[in-house]
Amino acid sequence: MTGLTWGMIGGGEGSQIGPVHRISAALDGLFTMTAGALDIEPEKGRDFARRLGIAPDRAYGDWREMLAGERDRPDRIDLVTVATPNATHYEITKAFLEAGINVLCEKPMTVTVEEAEDIAATARRTGAICAVNYGYTGYPLVRHMRAMVARGDLGKVRLAVVEFSHGFHADAADADNPRMRWRYDPALAGLSGQFADCGIHALHMASFVCGENARELSSDFVSAIASRKLEDDAMVNVRMDGGTTVRLWTSSVAVGSFHGLNIRVFGEKGGLRWAQQWPDQLHWTPLNGRTEVIERGSADSPEAARATRIATGHSEGMLVAFANIYADLAEVIRARGAGRAPDPIACHYPTAVDGLRSITAIRAAVDSAARSGAWTDARPPSLRAG
Amino acid sequence: MTGLTWGMIGGGEGSQIGPVHRISAALDGLFTMTAGALDIEPEKGRDFARRLGIAPDRAYGDWREMLAGERDRPDRIDLVTVATPNATHYEITKAFLEAGINVLCEKPMTVTVEEAEDIAATARRTGAICAVNYGYTGYPLVRHMRAMVARGDLGKVRLAVVEFSHGFHADAADADNPRMRWRYDPALAGLSGQFADCGIHALHMASFVCGENARELSSDFVSAIASRKLEDDAMVNVRMDGGTTVRLWTSSVAVGSFHGLNIRVFGEKGGLRWAQQWPDQLHWTPLNGRTEVIERGSADSPEAARATRIATGHSEGMLVAFANIYADLAEVIRARGAGRAPDPIACHYPTAVDGLRSITAIRAAVDSAARSGAWTDARPPSLRAG
Amino acid sequence: MTGLTWGMIGGGEGSQIGPVHRISAALDGLFTMTAGALDIEPEKGRDFARRLGIAPDRAYGDWREMLAGERDRPDRIDLVTVATPNATHYEITKAFLEAGINVLCEKPMTVTVEEAEDIAATARRTGAICAVNYGYTGYPLVRHMRAMVARGDLGKVRLAVVEFSHGFHADAADADNPRMRWRYDPALAGLSGQFADCGIHALHMASFVCGENARELSSDFVSAIASRKLEDDAMVNVRMDGGTTVRLWTSSVAVGSFHGLNIRVFGEKGGLRWAQQWPDQLHWTPLNGRTEVIERGSADSPEAARATRIATGHSEGMLVAFANIYADLAEVIRARGAGRAPDPIACHYPTAVDGLRSITAIRAAVDSAARSGAWTDARPPSLRAG
Amino acid sequence: MTGLTWGMIGGGEGSQIGPVHRISAALDGLFTMTAGALDIEPEKGRDFARRLGIAPDRAYGDWREMLAGERDRPDRIDLVTVATPNATHYEITKAFLEAGINVLCEKPMTVTVEEAEDIAATARRTGAICAVNYGYTGYPLVRHMRAMVARGDLGKVRLAVVEFSHGFHADAADADNPRMRWRYDPALAGLSGQFADCGIHALHMASFVCGENARELSSDFVSAIASRKLEDDAMVNVRMDGGTTVRLWTSSVAVGSFHGLNIRVFGEKGGLRWAQQWPDQLHWTPLNGRTEVIERGSADSPEAARATRIATGHSEGMLVAFANIYADLAEVIRARGAGRAPDPIACHYPTAVDGLRSITAIRAAVDSAARSGAWTDARPPSLRAG
Repeated sequence: MTGLTWGMIGGGEGSQIGPVHRISAALDGLFTMTAGALDIEPEKGRDFARRLGIAPDRAYGDWREMLAGERDRPDRIDLVTVATPNATHYEITKAFLEAGINVLCEKPMTVTVEEAEDIAATARRTGAICAVNYGYTGYPLVRHMRAMVARGDLGKVRLAVVEFSHGFHADAADADNPRMRWRYDPALAGLSGQFADCGIHALHMASFVCGENARELSSDFVSAIASRKLEDDAMVNVRMDGGTTVRLWTSSVAVGSFHGLNIRVFGEKGGLRWAQQWPDQLHWTPLNGRTEVIERGSADSPEAARATRIATGHSEGMLVAFANIYADLAEVIRARGAGRAPDPIACHYPTAVDGLRSITAIRAAVDSAARSGAWTDARPPSLRAG
Repeated sequence: MTGLTWGMIGGGEGSQIGPVHRISAALDGLFTMTAGALDIEPEKGRDFARRLGIAPDRAYGDWREMLAGERDRPDRIDLVTVATPNATHYEITKAFLEAGINVLCEKPMTVTVEEAEDIAATARRTGAICAVNYGYTGYPLVRHMRAMVARGDLGKVRLAVVEFSHGFHADAADADNPRMRWRYDPALAGLSGQFADCGIHALHMASFVCGENARELSSDFVSAIASRKLEDDAMVNVRMDGGTTVRLWTSSVAVGSFHGLNIRVFGEKGGLRWAQQWPDQLHWTPLNGRTEVIERGSADSPEAARATRIATGHSEGMLVAFANIYADLAEVIRARGAGRAPDPIACHYPTAVDGLRSITAIRAAVDSAARSGAWTDARPPSLRAG
Repeated sequence: MTGLTWGMIGGGEGSQIGPVHRISAALDGLFTMTAGALDIEPEKGRDFARRLGIAPDRAYGDWREMLAGERDRPDRIDLVTVATPNATHYEITKAFLEAGINVLCEKPMTVTVEEAEDIAATARRTGAICAVNYGYTGYPLVRHMRAMVARGDLGKVRLAVVEFSHGFHADAADADNPRMRWRYDPALAGLSGQFADCGIHALHMASFVCGENARELSSDFVSAIASRKLEDDAMVNVRMDGGTTVRLWTSSVAVGSFHGLNIRVFGEKGGLRWAQQWPDQLHWTPLNGRTEVIERGSADSPEAARATRIATGHSEGMLVAFANIYADLAEVIRARGAGRAPDPIACHYPTAVDGLRSITAIRAAVDSAARSGAWTDARPPSLRAG
Repeated sequence: MTGLTWGMIGGGEGSQIGPVHRISAALDGLFTMTAGALDIEPEKGRDFARRLGIAPDRAYGDWREMLAGERDRPDRIDLVTVATPNATHYEITKAFLEAGINVLCEKPMTVTVEEAEDIAATARRTGAICAVNYGYTGYPLVRHMRAMVARGDLGKVRLAVVEFSHGFHADAADADNPRMRWRYDPALAGLSGQFADCGIHALHMASFVCGENARELSSDFVSAIASRKLEDDAMVNVRMDGGTTVRLWTSSVAVGSFHGLNIRVFGEKGGLRWAQQWPDQLHWTPLNGRTEVIERGSADSPEAARATRIATGHSEGMLVAFANIYADLAEVIRARGAGRAPDPIACHYPTAVDGLRSITAIRAAVDSAARSGAWTDARPPSLRAG
């Protein structure tokens, strides 16, 4: 297998998400980092890129320069990851898609529903891959849950109870710290605080596992720290288009939770339970039966097997989950290059349509909260026909 | 200490709740069972009572006979537990209170808000003790949570996230089994199914721990098994009168949960986490600190110390929690007998006012669900002034 | 059912074990406490007994007075619990057995092997019941483990890995505190410290579950706190007479353990795991299969069913486990009174023979440790034929 | 930072350990794989190497060819990983060290103590780095335990209780499967089965954390599956040179364990508990205090901070732990290249001396087991002076 080439926009020195992407992309040796515009300050970005081993002529000062430099190279990058501030995702992603370059965009894909519709349409029109980094669905046992639901182990799903909670923003005395304040400031974060930041991951996971999409929702937003304009705690009830009810709680003031991304799924024939903090075990209870512990590595689906690298009993962790998104993209890119169909189980990465659905759900949750929890349509305008 | 005398109505042979009360009342040797009307069939009840060691003249055929028999005895029972079908609680409890006999009533205290107001008023007027068996608050570590909140360890409480879920009613093929069907039949269960059956315990626990009461709420009810007229799954958001938000989920179709009564409380200065299935450990995370495990037996409050019998590391369990309600009642009854003030930390058992608040909250949740989650006043009419 | 009568020697006001026995005996209403010699100081003991509701003429000053008073009464006690200091167990137990009164003796049954042989022979000769309080085997799920082994679920058992560890004696600065010092003083505690105090419970549990007895053992004793003459930490390897190897670790300096009594059993066809701190769940892994969680209350053996009182999902705890020993004894006493065979699954309480085996194992472990871990016969002299 | 170059011997297509090394070495982008002799069949190895992106002239047929090819290149590899069958480790490692090429050798470093002494001496003499892959000590929280012990948080350590158990070899019907049979065949596995395979990791971890080395030991070996010539279960008691007692259990027939590598450390001032299956939490109990949960990412030592990549609450896993060994080696190699002292906290990787101590401990455990557990010197001959 010859390596694919990969570039990154954003994720400069000192950023949190930058190394996560670089490790995840490198982990299986599928992608080699060959281009980058890593920093808001051009010279810092070029310098950092060179130190990461990128050739000087592909260490760009900004994304426009990078687009210009890559677009017409015969060996242009196979994939670009967009990890810039949220408000810039739309413009950059759209530009690369228009150039026919595959994109993995950090979430949120855009700020507005209209932009999201545009990205989804652009991806459809250009044929370029547009993936969005709801990376937690890369965990082998999350994929196994989806497979179990899809093959009918649970029967019809009735309920999914999901949570994404942490307490990292609970300190009122630290609320003005710029590191966290921006997340609750509409000017910088957009319409929603904690729901857009974390809760949406939980909703995407529920959709992913259940194979259903949000139809309407009712939300309750709270700013536990009163100075915050946006919510730091939210409860959202969702009716999915397949009939499942999702109960979603998210909080950033839940002292004692640490990235507590949990999902429970209850169907006619059994229930599932999984938590991101201990991702290597999945609990499955068949109806009227005993809870069983499914260890990563012994999960009996091709989806889980494909996403797993090491033996049962060792822990794999989040970087491997994110690497699975990259591995999926590598397979699809290669298949296109070879003019063959990709492995179908590599096609479960989140796409522009998932990004669009997520933005629409955020918009709906904000509107519902403003109207005392009134039930609100959560479907993208372009997808309301169904 | 001379023993107190105790009687029971309902809880006949084969009932689930009967032995729980008998064990709990006997556990500390504080009460001796001396009277009973245990069964809907008089002769069966008398026979069973005699076999339990009750003197033949106090083995009654029904509650009216028992009231008549006990009311004027000089050695009449110190306390009667009412564990009959829900619809009869009001009449029986009221009659015994009017006779000046102390009552521990199983939940729900009554069916309607009006009846509940009447019981609360009757208890106030007669001076007889009227307790209601929200017994889960008898756990030492639940009492310790309340003490921690009261003494300010958490600062102002912001959120309580509570849950009472199980999957015992998840089997659609068994939904017509009379053992469970009645709970979802308005004719037998009243206004609400799972919320009234289990969820209300979680709300009472949140109130107990936070020291606040429900002011208004918004609810979403689902019948996951479509044939059910009443809900088997509910989500309720509550604003408490002290400003805390409660997020409450309850379900009887959550396959893999087994009496999952859990509470998490998040305040300005820290968070607490406790689960009924492992009641001997409480998790406490101070703001910006590490999670600590508080073992029952080493909790540093007089409330916890009073409620604890055996050394740290052994498990105590639910019967001991319920026994704490009886122990509290014994102390209060004795104090009255001796003309002294009771130990103040023995006064945390749930009362007729708690029963009234619970019935009102159920009524409000039913109304809110019927109006698509509209926010609804959850305060008893008689307590809306404050 | 008419109640049985019960007396107690030792367990006076302020003792730890006294209330455990009183609660356990009372819990099911099977025994009524009707006689007692509760304290080393006669008047204190008489006073305390009267306050516990014992009739004045049966509130005795010491055990000899109690034996004299009870022996010839037509309504003499059905059972006496001996909870006095260890060195007195032999004399008291022997005297009551000789009088034909059934005894439940706290562990250790005696100090020496010779005394233990004598008690076992006396019980055999007189026909009186002699039980020894290895009460942890009263847990429903421990009984279920035994049943699973006995019915062949595990196939031939290969290994049992057991542990009884705590850290309550880890503080060197507190080592001279009389409350703990006596346990490591040969003059007061006998031959062994932590192994005799706690470890022996773990060995008894392994025997109970596996249905095998110790044949020989090799031990390593350590006094982690150097001033102690007896061990505060011990590792013992045991070959059982059925071929199973037991690996037993016990410690009183294991800071962070709290009565950590754990057992794992590994057989040809599966493995079991149970911990006293969370006694309501048993983990079972069939060979080449998934770990399953067996909840107390849904364990499918008559042994577990008999020992269980409340529904799955609630916790029962140690007092209920100990109550099961009393419930067994009640059944056997009643059966004898009625001239019928007792329910066979009520016959799993630990007997004088278990007491004898335990004392012999302690003796062997002490000898082995003194000889650098040399393998040592652990069988009682009277039982070496097999 | 310019990348270092790395080669691998063994770890061909289909091997388990090969991808673990390739991912771990690549994870931080510190090493680029530039040479390899990956398979016992030269052509398969060359082909696989080329497919992994290695230049054809450095895709070697065997290790001798690789040594010849690399030894005199100006751009020869900075590090070679030896992941061949155990019996070949000595010869290969020695040859590369003699050429001055740094080696990371899979465990066991050699088969005999004499060979291990030779490797340790060769590394000392040549100055080349010789690391041995006891990779589990790369976990951030294992390093934090070591730091806590070193800085005195526990006071004097008294005991370490360690375990490495699994049940993957428990099926007697599958015992002749070549995949597992070789591990219990002296001709292929050497002197010891499960202790050498897994147990020695636990001993190394105890040494690493406590900062002490084995002085003498007593062992009990069992072949639970009788046809095995070597042990599949072992208990080893160890006295460390600093006075700590280690209690080590290892098993491959422990059905229900899955790579259960656990360590508990008990000192004068507190206790620690960690398990490989949930590597992101460390439990710390100060003497007379409450158990605290130390989350990876918030552990307050530079050792833990250096070894951690992502935020608290996400899981990192084994590949990251192994990557830490590579990161340490990269730092030391670079420091040597730059003529500066390496970061001292990068010097905790296991060395040839650790490899030597491990081989000696295995030898001692085998001898002790053969002599009924007699205490046996566990120090390498060259290190007995102390």
